[in-house]
Amino acid sequence: MAKVTPRTLSGFMELLPADQMKMERIMQLLRENYSLYGFTPLDTPAIESSEVLLAKGGGETEKQIYRFTKGDSDLALRFDLTVPLAKYVAAHYGELTFPFRRYQIGKVYRGERAQRGRFREFYQADIDVIGDGSLDIMNEAEIPAIIYSTFRRLGFQRFQIHVNNRKILNGFYSMNGMAEKAGEIMRTVDKLDKIGAEKVRLLLIDEVKMLPCKAENVMDFMAIRGTNEEVLEALSRYRGMDATFDEGLDELIAVTAHLKEFGVPEANFAIDLTIARGLDYYTGTVYETMMTDHPEIGSVCSGGRYDDLAGYYTDKKLPGVGISIGLTRLFYVLQEQHLLSEEPVSAPADALVIPMTEDFGPAVSAATVLRSAGVRTQLYTEKKKFKAKMSYADKQKIPFVILLGEDEIREGILSVKDMTSGEQCKLTPSEAAAFIREKIGARNAACAVKE
Amino acid sequence: MAKVTPRTLSGFMELLPADQMKMERIMQLLRENYSLYGFTPLDTPAIESSEVLLAKGGGETEKQIYRFTKGDSDLALRFDLTVPLAKYVAAHYGELTFPFRRYQIGKVYRGERAQRGRFREFYQADIDVIGDGSLDIMNEAEIPAIIYSTFRRLGFQRFQIHVNNRKILNGFYSMNGMAEKAGEIMRTVDKLDKIGAEKVRLLLIDEVKMLPCKAENVMDFMAIRGTNEEVLEALSRYRGMDATFDEGLDELIAVTAHLKEFGVPEANFAIDLTIARGLDYYTGTVYETMMTDHPEIGSVCSGGRYDDLAGYYTDKKLPGVGISIGLTRLFYVLQEQHLLSEEPVSAPADALVIPMTEDFGPAVSAATVLRSAGVRTQLYTEKKKFKAKMSYADKQKIPFVILLGEDEIREGILSVKDMTSGEQCKLTPSEAAAFIREKIGARNAACAVKE
Repeated sequence: MAKVTPRTLSGFMELLPADQMKMERIMQLLRENYSLYGFTPLDTPAIESSEVLLAKGGGETEKQIYRFTKGDSDLALRFDLTVPLAKYVAAHYGELTFPFRRYQIGKVYRGERAQRGRFREFYQADIDVIGDGSLDIMNEAEIPAIIYSTFRRLGFQRFQIHVNNRKILNGFYSMNGMAEKAGEIMRTVDKLDKIGAEKVRLLLIDEVKMLPCKAENVMDFMAIRGTNEEVLEALSRYRGMDATFDEGLDELIAVTAHLKEFGVPEANFAIDLTIARGLDYYTGTVYETMMTDHPEIGSVCSGGRYDDLAGYYTDKKLPGVGISIGLTRLFYVLQEQHLLSEEPVSAPADALVIPMTEDFGPAVSAATVLRSAGVRTQLYTEKKKFKAKMSYADKQKIPFVILLGEDEIREGILSVKDMTSGEQCKLTPSEAAAFIREKIGARNAACAVKE
Repeated sequence: MAKVTPRTLSGFMELLPADQMKMERIMQLLRENYSLYGFTPLDTPAIESSEVLLAKGGGETEKQIYRFTKGDSDLALRFDLTVPLAKYVAAHYGELTFPFRRYQIGKVYRGERAQRGRFREFYQADIDVIGDGSLDIMNEAEIPAIIYSTFRRLGFQRFQIHVNNRKILNGFYSMNGMAEKAGEIMRTVDKLDKIGAEKVRLLLIDEVKMLPCKAENVMDFMAIRGTNEEVLEALSRYRGMDATFDEGLDELIAVTAHLKEFGVPEANFAIDLTIARGLDYYTGTVYETMMTDHPEIGSVCSGGRYDDLAGYYTDKKLPGVGISIGLTRLFYVLQEQHLLSEEPVSAPADALVIPMTEDFGPAVSAATVLRSAGVRTQLYTEKKKFKAKMSYADKQKIPFVILLGEDEIREGILSVKDMTSGEQCKLTPSEAAAFIREKIGARNAACAVKE
């Protein structure tokens, strides 16, 4: 029979078993951590009506979208988790309790031009808090704590959460009479990291057509650095000149006020007046998260405050704050940089039970005891030579092999071989379960990411 | 602004928060239980090349598929998890270790005509064991143990795993000279449950055009009932007449031999000669799982042994055995029948911290302590009346509310209110964490499903 070549589309991540285990571990950690902050899991369809999904319309998004018809229906695959959230909240408004806090880890689709490290199908891991009419600033203050605990829990140490407030920027531009150029200025300032201060200054003068003194003002403002206290002190000098600025500064003060009680060390936090986030809908606090040793990756967790989540669907004013991790891309980078820890067990099983007698009964019983005690156990019964059986465990890095021959059966014990140390010991089934659980537990206590 | 009506496509499940929590709990239990049997998680793209996905081609499937083009690519959404598994195993053959045991819980897509309880996007939860060239019968023997532990863990008690072997059926038809009518007979016998024995007998004579005595033979065979021992005894009388039959009987004996050691009570297991599974590719043991009190649902977990997983992609012979749970449909039925337990906490948080003072610092600290101790905690800081705050907890069924006023702050304690009993007590933050964890732990120890 003619064969079809089994291939996976380019731009679609498909992992081998050990890597998939690492990915699952990360997802589970995210689920657990988001849950600790009172976020409820949400799952929405990957397919939506095009009319609903593209209500906002236009732009790059529409070009990248997977859109198709089925029968009379004009359908599309979701390209982010925010639009489906807006739809969900608007559609179920009467059935939800606000503030509504949800996390969602799901695949989204963008038909971008394929290139290394870019994906057409990728997981986003989002959290959002949606208020009904209003939403207290404390929700914005809590976000850095969630980012911090999430990345710490994954195993990261050297990262920094950058925080700014769009009202401070807008207020600043307004007090300098540059309000109508604010967007252009922000896009130019965004290049600071890449091209440096001097080139940004020249661009502001040559391309944005600013007066040199005004450009200087912008550069001075963006150069404000220091501890939170120092930055807030420097910003307070601009107080009283613009109501929006003052509001933004008050919010920034509120966001930084409880960092200590939230358990966020100052070393992992920085007010950064240069970040603005491209998306138009952010209206208050904005967040980015940078890996100290890998600035080239860019922000691994970003988001911000918005005032109008679902304006395309409802007249209700639904302000919110949220952040998103591009999980597939993050995983890809961690894999590339060899930052995924090998310590947690990524084998399909913790123990492989190999019966050495014709009657498999005792081996089955042993496997049942181990499983009841929470040991992930595979029973190996293929008709192979002993060496091939051991090699099966070895190749998959299964940590323990349990041999069960006539002697063991007679004595009611198991021979447990630690595949890492090579040591072997004889234990009763329940002793073996406790022993393996302890060893595996120690390995699994290690973080997913090593730094 | 003109609004787009926020709607979810019909045939697509979208749950409210409390129900979504119940669904997540079930998925997590499935992941844990499959893992205990040494299955590794797998994730494959939802989109595949149409050529790859439809390599087998034809049939109902092709009509239901979501197929579309993007640029030059002819793409389709997966309609099951088996074809992607076949592709995966064929594509990564050299990188996998066999037997390859994987579980996969993922969404699949079928553009069926929408009707109540039928979904166009639904989760399947599959496990498969794939051998390279051969696969020992013990893999088939283990499947009932996995089905049993899975449903028990979910909370089901009254269910029965029905097992048959296609070789027994094929051998029986062959020894009766009905081999070429085997397919038609099986489809007719499949109606036994619905229309009864007498009508099946008539259909066999009138429509399948069997001689009355032959139809009688079939009916006698299908009527074989009893304990495993009794059924195997009855079947043994057919031994020696057909090699395929004998092989099938030996396999059935092997599959039933270790039920006790696998921990499967006979009450939850039955040899059932009437089941065949429609799919052509099953070649040996077949499985169905029936809810004793809800036979109308049909099988909630089915599968079987197949000899050729990936023949459309590779010359390698890859036999396997697998089962699948139609998770979305199962959840829908459980919801409809009010079989989902309310005992496990399905609120977004275990505790809601309500600060009663202007300074939120102490409340933030308390929330941080609770979270560090594993209590899912929400900090409630919206500017609302006290009653509205309590109502927020109440509506979402958050089990504990923690009040933090000036007295509590001064004394370094928390007022913990049990929202179920209405009782209130004063505890230090770490006492409160331990107290809440214990209460929540007891509730979460309850099963997801009540019977």
